Amino acid sequence: MFSYDPIGYVKSPYASTPQIPKGLGAKHETEGTLEILPQYEVGLTDIEGFSHLFVLWVFDRADGYELIGTPPTDSRPHGVFATRSPRRPNPIGLTVVQLLRREGRVLHLRGVDMLDGTPILDIKPYLSSIPQEQLRRGWLAEAESRASKEEEHAS
Amino acid sequence: MFSYDPIGYVKSPYASTPQIPKGLGAKHETEGTLEILPQYEVGLTDIEGFSHLFVLWVFDRADGYELIGTPPTDSRPHGVFATRSPRRPNPIGLTVVQLLRREGRVLHLRGVDMLDGTPILDIKPYLSSIPQEQLRRGWLAEAESRASKEEEHAS
Repeated sequence: MFSYDPIGYVKSPYASTPQIPKGLGAKHETEGTLEILPQYEVGLTDIEGFSHLFVLWVFDRADGYELIGTPPTDSRPHGVFATRSPRRPNPIGLTVVQLLRREGRVLHLRGVDMLDGTPILDIKPYLSSIPQEQLRRGWLAEAESRASKEEEHAS
Repeated sequence: MFSYDPIGYVKSPYASTPQIPKGLGAKHETEGTLEILPQYEVGLTDIEGFSHLFVLWVFDRADGYELIGTPPTDSRPHGVFATRSPRRPNPIGLTVVQLLRREGRVLHLRGVDMLDGTPILDIKPYLSSIPQEQLRRGWLAEAESRASKEEEHAS
């Protein structure tokens, strides 16, 4: 068993889960901050140079897990490791955020999808992307394609 | 404090850290597997549809942490949260891998940079990329630029 203490906490406008945009086409443009604990501030040195960061955090309000579940982006169930469900065996979240600016031990971000007060485990620089044309996105691409056909049909 | 049990383990050709390619221009094309514990196998349902995955894992052989350190890609020190150093306050690793195929509870991957036997905490689908032209890569871009100038100078 591996144990971790938070390095800081998220400040976001989301007080409860239903407020977080979800489902196909959900935009994550929300601004918020990461407030790093004073003892770790020096670990942020030079982070300003990166436009994007990975944030690892705790789904601290998730309750247990389910190995198969239906995500908000689909009407069909999928394995938990093929989704971003909070109800995971190890409830750790991962978000790619845009770093707007740093003020001391506070990072101002765009793209926050965490609840206010979420504990942060780690921050890493986002160094490179897989080119979009090399990505296959399984059930999510299928759900998007079904949704756009239904839209066509309805119009 | 948040505690996590591994959901499985990495099989890789790397028995010790010096064998892992590091530094500027290091390629991560190495093949390896994730072996998920039997009780979590059903959580892999539909994962085959994704070309790339995020793997969260434990730097289980890292020893303590340092808030400022010099990465193998540079001759200058940087804050730990601006690097991928294993010596982090919470020693959790994050790797983007290509999923080659699944056999039951074994995922065959390209792009493994973990040591053999590394504990896995979570697997998530890689859904989208930040376009390369939107990325700023701080000290890493500077180190690459210095390295290519030194190469020119030497030739």
